[in-house]
Amino acid sequence: MTNIAILGFGVVGGGTAELITKNKDEVAALGGDTVNIKYILDLRDFPNSPLGDRVVHDFEQILSDPEIDTVIEVMGGSHPAYEYTAAALRAGKNVITSNKEVVATYGDELLEIAREAGVSYRFEAAVGGGIPVISPIIGFIRQNRITEVRGILNGTTNYILTKMFTLGESFEASLADAQSRGYAERNPDADILGLDAARKIAILAALVTDRLYPTDAIHTEGIVGIRAADVSAADKLGRQIKLLGRCIIPEGGSPFIMVAPFLLPSDAPLSTVSGVYNAVEVLGEPIGSAMFFGPGAGAAPTASAVVGDLMQIMRSGTRCATPSFTRGDAAIKASFEGFVSRHYLAFPEGARKDLLNAFVGATEIEAVGECAIVTEYLSESELNERLAALGVAPLSHIRLL
Amino acid sequence: MTNIAILGFGVVGGGTAELITKNKDEVAALGGDTVNIKYILDLRDFPNSPLGDRVVHDFEQILSDPEIDTVIEVMGGSHPAYEYTAAALRAGKNVITSNKEVVATYGDELLEIAREAGVSYRFEAAVGGGIPVISPIIGFIRQNRITEVRGILNGTTNYILTKMFTLGESFEASLADAQSRGYAERNPDADILGLDAARKIAILAALVTDRLYPTDAIHTEGIVGIRAADVSAADKLGRQIKLLGRCIIPEGGSPFIMVAPFLLPSDAPLSTVSGVYNAVEVLGEPIGSAMFFGPGAGAAPTASAVVGDLMQIMRSGTRCATPSFTRGDAAIKASFEGFVSRHYLAFPEGARKDLLNAFVGATEIEAVGECAIVTEYLSESELNERLAALGVAPLSHIRLL
Repeated sequence: MTNIAILGFGVVGGGTAELITKNKDEVAALGGDTVNIKYILDLRDFPNSPLGDRVVHDFEQILSDPEIDTVIEVMGGSHPAYEYTAAALRAGKNVITSNKEVVATYGDELLEIAREAGVSYRFEAAVGGGIPVISPIIGFIRQNRITEVRGILNGTTNYILTKMFTLGESFEASLADAQSRGYAERNPDADILGLDAARKIAILAALVTDRLYPTDAIHTEGIVGIRAADVSAADKLGRQIKLLGRCIIPEGGSPFIMVAPFLLPSDAPLSTVSGVYNAVEVLGEPIGSAMFFGPGAGAAPTASAVVGDLMQIMRSGTRCATPSFTRGDAAIKASFEGFVSRHYLAFPEGARKDLLNAFVGATEIEAVGECAIVTEYLSESELNERLAALGVAPLSHIRLL
Repeated sequence: MTNIAILGFGVVGGGTAELITKNKDEVAALGGDTVNIKYILDLRDFPNSPLGDRVVHDFEQILSDPEIDTVIEVMGGSHPAYEYTAAALRAGKNVITSNKEVVATYGDELLEIAREAGVSYRFEAAVGGGIPVISPIIGFIRQNRITEVRGILNGTTNYILTKMFTLGESFEASLADAQSRGYAERNPDADILGLDAARKIAILAALVTDRLYPTDAIHTEGIVGIRAADVSAADKLGRQIKLLGRCIIPEGGSPFIMVAPFLLPSDAPLSTVSGVYNAVEVLGEPIGSAMFFGPGAGAAPTASAVVGDLMQIMRSGTRCATPSFTRGDAAIKASFEGFVSRHYLAFPEGARKDLLNAFVGATEIEAVGECAIVTEYLSESELNERLAALGVAPLSHIRLL
């Protein structure tokens, strides 16, 4: 019997407990042992839950119990989740988490503590909800020379963009709709400003570069500036707008890591990902590409990923493929200046002549009451120089994939 | 140093050797050891290859060398691939294969031999080319209650159907185009009659039902009967036609396993998979769904999957998640009679009145020079009874997803 403790009895904790209880035969067959939920840590009591008798309020009780093999941290937030995780690992307990904030901030340190203690720290659920993403990348794709990992990593923003494209609605109306359906929080900033996606691309980038770069060193743009006029322009270009996290690894250079809206060709695999779905695409040699796709959030899929990690630990302990990375240099932020792409730019009608002079070779797109172009390939620094010389702020700026 | 032997120096064998040689640092880091290709078995000599000195012509030399830890069988065909695999496993060597024919026919027996010998038999490359499919399903999804696994498992037929849809070309013209591009073989029967897809769905079904059903017990239809008129009808229904392998697992009943063209809603994730791409979708509780997508064939992606298996074996041996299944009952074929779906049927114009009488509640679709309907939900046996009573053979019959 493998004894576990669940930290946090919210939606993910509840979903995890339910999956372990309901599918106990599958879990025992796959893990090679039965699983006993010995403790559930929560501030509240749950007198009506069949697991109500497992609820404890003091983490020390879990930490000091030598029978506890694995701790599942699904409490959310950085603190005390980080401290509990570090303490559990040091006490020789495996830790599984869905907490992308803790992984993106402290993942390198926690992996090192786990390594020293001879236990596992796993976080499949931190990216892509229930979709197996992290484990396939480190277990079955890393033998390739990876050139890029990119993805639609935030379901809320993808839902909003899908709405804007299919119904021609404004950003504000689409956000309000997402809030009314519970897809967006009342304070939606972490989603719409790209912070949630930045944490996830930081984790994915760590898997393929072996470095966890600080989230604030990642160039991050959200979707708040996207206008109905940009959606029309995208339509005219035969493209979709998607908020992507991207980690591009040039041969022999620093990686470019970013979160930003991109104009994708309609036949790109990521273009077909709509609504609250997430997808992660890995490009490399010789694999070409592989994409993982599914519901990116929600208690039930997340629980599936958490229990998947538990099965791995029960079967193979630290011998199964495990992420491994150290701290990356925040100086990476500056290297974004060298990132080259084509740029869609929209300006007030009056700037048309100067704009076409500043971006010779650009293609003009038909637009009502404004002037829109797609530039040739330009680095961020070249673009910024020309925009500064122009002296007019663009209404929109979206890069092309 | 881990010594391996590669059986067959064709495109996949060559691609595998190249990946191991070119990405040797990644391979050593991930596998925890360097890999030495000690032997390559082929009938031919390769005097100009840098690995030409590893080529041997006698399998016994490999079998009797105790230094050989793992054998990679990429020779194709059932014999002697099956005999060599069994002998290598019995001699205590791990075996990795891309050979779906051997896995679909002898997989249960070979897994049992491997288990007895305490070694691994792995075949990630047998389904979905380079896309990690088998390992994520058994390692990270099986803890769910799986209700269905389905996929676009054959790139050739998907290319042909994509051509028919995008260019309005006939089946014959699309097949000829696929042949001219090397996507279809000169004798395309294994692809267009659905046999290749049947082997792959047999393997996928084994992962989720624990039973390997004989390929000839799987209801198998190809795409040869699909006409331009069916493509128009699909367009009118807002649907795509895709050749799907499906294994549906009803609660408490026998699985329904089939390969057949299906009419998919255009917004279904599998509808967006075009050209030579493959995709596998797994449905279950609580995960909802997860889809794996990528190039389904080709030497380079297949080599990636083969080397992925090698990394697993080097790191975890038999402790990593391993497929496990026994022989399934061929009687499953009969249970297909109970499979319920909606059916698109096209008949000669003259049968219209009888047809609408026979299928009360069906929806008629506008069609030129013929009569086409979509029935309500009907089992295969109900459908066949009504068709027999009607006494006229349909021009087309395609099920709806």
